[in-house]
Amino acid sequence: MTAPTNLPPSRDKLLFTPGPLTTSFSVKQAMLHDAGSWHREFNDKVKWVRARILEVAGLWREPGWETVLLQGSGTFGVEAVLSTCVPPNGKVAVLANGAYGERIVLMLQHLKIPHLVLRTAEHAPNDPGALDQTLATDQTITHVAIVHCETTTGLLNPITEAGRVVKRHGRTYLVDAMSSFGAIPIDFAAAGIDFLVSSANKCIEGVPGFCFVICRRAALLACDGYARSLSLDLLDQLKGFEKNGQFRYTPPTHAILAFEQALNELELEGGVAGRGARYRQNHEALVEGMKRLGFRPYLDPAVQSYIISSFYYPETERFDFDAFYRRLSDKGFIIYPGKISQAQTFRIGSIGRIFPGDIAALLSAIGSALKEMGIKMI
Amino acid sequence: MTAPTNLPPSRDKLLFTPGPLTTSFSVKQAMLHDAGSWHREFNDKVKWVRARILEVAGLWREPGWETVLLQGSGTFGVEAVLSTCVPPNGKVAVLANGAYGERIVLMLQHLKIPHLVLRTAEHAPNDPGALDQTLATDQTITHVAIVHCETTTGLLNPITEAGRVVKRHGRTYLVDAMSSFGAIPIDFAAAGIDFLVSSANKCIEGVPGFCFVICRRAALLACDGYARSLSLDLLDQLKGFEKNGQFRYTPPTHAILAFEQALNELELEGGVAGRGARYRQNHEALVEGMKRLGFRPYLDPAVQSYIISSFYYPETERFDFDAFYRRLSDKGFIIYPGKISQAQTFRIGSIGRIFPGDIAALLSAIGSALKEMGIKMI
Repeated sequence: MTAPTNLPPSRDKLLFTPGPLTTSFSVKQAMLHDAGSWHREFNDKVKWVRARILEVAGLWREPGWETVLLQGSGTFGVEAVLSTCVPPNGKVAVLANGAYGERIVLMLQHLKIPHLVLRTAEHAPNDPGALDQTLATDQTITHVAIVHCETTTGLLNPITEAGRVVKRHGRTYLVDAMSSFGAIPIDFAAAGIDFLVSSANKCIEGVPGFCFVICRRAALLACDGYARSLSLDLLDQLKGFEKNGQFRYTPPTHAILAFEQALNELELEGGVAGRGARYRQNHEALVEGMKRLGFRPYLDPAVQSYIISSFYYPETERFDFDAFYRRLSDKGFIIYPGKISQAQTFRIGSIGRIFPGDIAALLSAIGSALKEMGIKMI
Repeated sequence: MTAPTNLPPSRDKLLFTPGPLTTSFSVKQAMLHDAGSWHREFNDKVKWVRARILEVAGLWREPGWETVLLQGSGTFGVEAVLSTCVPPNGKVAVLANGAYGERIVLMLQHLKIPHLVLRTAEHAPNDPGALDQTLATDQTITHVAIVHCETTTGLLNPITEAGRVVKRHGRTYLVDAMSSFGAIPIDFAAAGIDFLVSSANKCIEGVPGFCFVICRRAALLACDGYARSLSLDLLDQLKGFEKNGQFRYTPPTHAILAFEQALNELELEGGVAGRGARYRQNHEALVEGMKRLGFRPYLDPAVQSYIISSFYYPETERFDFDAFYRRLSDKGFIIYPGKISQAQTFRIGSIGRIFPGDIAALLSAIGSALKEMGIKMI
C-alpha cells in the first residue's frame, strides 16, 4: 500500500467555497513552527488572539466580554454553547431556513434539550414577527438560536431585528456567525447578542482547527454545572484560560500560529470594513459575470450576502454538475455543490484570499467549460 | 493593540513534552497548501490516512476494523467513544492511576453515565486481578476503560492482561493509547480491544488538530441511537466517511496533509518497531544521563515507558522548577511540569522528531542550569 501520488502542480487550486478557504501564503508559512502548548510564548499568543477577536468584534473597549477558543470545527462551537449554557429546564427556539439552522435542531435532539423550530422557506429570511408571537405565548423558551449567513443559500438573516425581539422578551440569544464574522459588521449591543460563534477558517482567513465563541462573561459564568460534555464545556474552557493561560486539552498549535498571522493581515486590509469591501467586490463581479453567462441567482438580491451565492443549474439536459465541477477543477478552480432541498443549484463563494481578478479568471473558466459541454444559455 | 513581537530565533526550541511535539520540517511543509474539504483529491487522502492507520495498527489484513478520524484533541476522541458507544443502561469501569484515567471519570460524570473507578497508586500499574473480581461481582458493568501509557507519570499499564480479563467476562474494551500508539506495539487481538483512541500529534509525529479511533466495525455499528452529542457522534462520523468520503463537518485540512506526510515518514523509519527503537534510545540516554547528574526517576524501571519520564525535584531549597524551566527554555529546550499529586516531579519526553544527540544537548543544558542555580547533587 502506498500514498496516492500525483505530480505536484505549481500552485493550489483556488477555492470558491464556504471554507476551508484559500489563505495567504504567509498565513500558511506561520505554521512552519512547533510551539509548546504549555509554554509562555505560546500562551501569550493565545491571550493576544482572544483579545484581538474582541477588537474585531468591536468589543475591545466594552467591559464584560470574553472570547473562548475551542478545538474542532465551528459546529463544535455551536454545540458547546448549547451543551454548556442551556439549563436543565431550558428550551430553545431555533430560527431555521437552511442546513445550518437544521443542524442546530439536530444538536438539540442529541442533547435531549427541549426545543421548537420556526422555519421559513430557504429563500426567505427568518421572521422576527413570528418569533415575537412565539416568545409571547411560550414562556418556557429560555434561548433563541439564529444563523447569520445561512451558507446553504448565502442568505443573510436579520439578526439585529430578531435580537431586539429576543431582548424585549428577556431571553438569551445565540448567533451562529460562522461565515459572516470578520467581513460583515455585527452590532453586538443593538442585536443583544449573548453568545456568537465563528470559526478560524472563514472570513478571518485562518486555517481550520478551532472555533471561537464571543460571549458576555456574566452569561457564561451563570452556566455553572449545566455542561453535558467535558470536551465541549465552554465554561471550564474559559476557566482553563484564566487559570494558566492554557487550553485545557491539546490545542491546534499550528492553526493558532496561522490565526495570529491572519488577524494581522485582517488589520492590514482595514479590518472588517476593508475585508467586507473586497468580498463585496468579489461578489458583485461574480453575480454580474454569472448573469452575463446566462446563470440565474437563486436568491433575491435584497437577502443575498456577499459571502456565498447559489445559482440555478442551466435548464438543459446537457448540464451535469459533476462534469461541470470536474472541468472547472481541471482548470484550477474549485466551486461547491448546492445544498438547497427545493431547487437544483450550485454555490460559489466570494471569501478567502481571492480578488476580483480571480473571479474574472473563474468566470472565464466557467465560460470555457460551458462551451466544452456544448451548453449555450444566451 | 499590537501583536507580541520578538526578534524571531533561527530555529524552534526543542520540545521534550508529551505533545504537541517537535515534528520534521517536511511534515510542517506539507501544510503549505489549501485543500478543498469537499474535493476528491483531499478525500482520497482522508481515505488513505484511514487505511494507513489500520496498517500501523497491524490490522490491515484483518476484516472488520475501521478508523474514524475526529476533529479536536485526543480528549475529544475518548469522550466521543464514551458518548457514542455506552448504551443508556450501560456502566463503565475505569482503571485509573493518573490524570488521564481521572479525566475519563470526569467525562462519565459530565455524560451522566454510571461508572466505578478501580484506582491504583500513581506509581503502580492497573490491577487486572481487581478488575477480574469487580467484573465477576458487578454484572451491570458493560464497558472497561484503560489508559495505555499514563502520561501523568510515564507508566505503562498492562492493557493485554487487563483486556484478557475484560474479554473473559464478555465486556467491551476501550483503550486510551494517546501517547503510545505508533511507537509501542499493541496486539489488538490478544488484548481484545474494541475501541482504541490516539491523536495526530503524538508518536505518528503529525501536528495537532484531530484524533482517531480504531474500532471493530460491528462494535460501532451496534451503537445506533446512543450518541449524546452530534459533534462527538462517532457512528455518524463513520457514516459520513462511508457516504461521500468526507468529514461531516469542516476537517483540519492542513493537519491532515501534515499527517499524510508523517505517516510516510513513519514508514521510512521502519514503522512502529523503528520508531519505538529510536524513542527507546532517547529514553535510555535520558535516564542514564539524568542519573549521572544526580536525578532520581519517579517510576520503577519495570513499569516505565520509553515515552515520557518523571524525575523528582532535587532535594535542595535552591531548586525552583519555574527558574529551572526558564533557564532551559533560554537554552532552547522545553521540558514539562509534573502532574503527580503525591510527589514533586517534572517530566521529560522522549518522543517527537528528536534523537539521542538532542538528548545529549538537553542533558548538557540541564547540567549548566544546575550549575548556574548553584545546585550540586553529586
